[in-house]
Amino acid sequence: MQIAILLYEGVTALDAIGPYETLSRLPDARPVFVADRPGLVRNEKGSLGLFADAALGDVPTPDLIVVPGAPDTSGPRESAAVRDWLRAADATSTWTTSVCTGSLILAEAGLLTGRRATTHWHELDVLASYGVQATGDRVVTDGKYVTAAGVSSGIDMGLTLAGRIGGDRVAQSIQLLIEYDPQPPYDAGSPQKAPADIVAELRPAA
Amino acid sequence: MQIAILLYEGVTALDAIGPYETLSRLPDARPVFVADRPGLVRNEKGSLGLFADAALGDVPTPDLIVVPGAPDTSGPRESAAVRDWLRAADATSTWTTSVCTGSLILAEAGLLTGRRATTHWHELDVLASYGVQATGDRVVTDGKYVTAAGVSSGIDMGLTLAGRIGGDRVAQSIQLLIEYDPQPPYDAGSPQKAPADIVAELRPAA
Repeated sequence: MQIAILLYEGVTALDAIGPYETLSRLPDARPVFVADRPGLVRNEKGSLGLFADAALGDVPTPDLIVVPGAPDTSGPRESAAVRDWLRAADATSTWTTSVCTGSLILAEAGLLTGRRATTHWHELDVLASYGVQATGDRVVTDGKYVTAAGVSSGIDMGLTLAGRIGGDRVAQSIQLLIEYDPQPPYDAGSPQKAPADIVAELRPAA
Repeated sequence: MQIAILLYEGVTALDAIGPYETLSRLPDARPVFVADRPGLVRNEKGSLGLFADAALGDVPTPDLIVVPGAPDTSGPRESAAVRDWLRAADATSTWTTSVCTGSLILAEAGLLTGRRATTHWHELDVLASYGVQATGDRVVTDGKYVTAAGVSSGIDMGLTLAGRIGGDRVAQSIQLLIEYDPQPPYDAGSPQKAPADIVAELRPAA
């Protein structure tokens, strides 16, 4: 099972690494990080470099596509190369997935039109503007399209998908191996739970 | 605040990226990935390349040290360069931290002797063999030493430390930005919670 994880300049690292750490532990997983061209890609802050081992054209028919997000997805959304690759790869993929604003990149390619999907809580309106039924759920499965909410939700998505692909036992084994027994010291992980003034401060201007 | 995140061949990526995604969002954070020498480092599976921007000697006095783990930490544990750097950097650090089996690397450098600390559930006995009070807790703080359990626990550690460094409000803002509202599809993230036969299968031979 070939898993293509898209990288691009400015990507949010955890969006990519959450699904990677879960899905790469599936039996027969062959993950590959792909980008416009192979080489070093800098994350949103510039302080982390991730390496793309393959060009888009090297990975034309992945079984599973993972599209991570970023604070600014205009680069990949406006890239004809990314859009064409996504459309062609999606035509034969078993699963097409995203984390955070990665769903905006899928939407731009026309792959989520009319479907239920999710994204970072900041961007639900933008996702809806693509003709997507934008839910605020953490992980949304609509057919073969699995989308996750902001950043850290890619771990939950990866485990959900691991269960669909490998069965509950395999997914539970992965959860135990990565000791995913979350104990956040605060309960501020969603706009419904965080203090209202923090939500107001962080919500993007309309 | 300079944050040095150690990289080495075979590292577990999420061990490094969990703390990175939380701590790098602190005001004034200056994260830098360091390794024996600058350049590409492959993770435990070889399918992910992370880039070290600095050599150990380039970052002699970080304010915060993060040591991620790996299934096999013999490389960094047996490296005199890593050990010497850790001891010297720890002499002036404000916080010295680890995720997963990163605590074994700190312990090998003698930094955890007699202290309370944690590690991946696989390796609690090994940690104890260094004269460390090895608890099974997810995040353990003993003075300036903050250690986290397996892999994904680095996110909880990062938020805990973010609260200590920046205050509750900053930590809650970071939690909301990365939408860390965990909803694992299974409840198998610790040996106490996972099905007993899975724990038995994954527990290393004594």
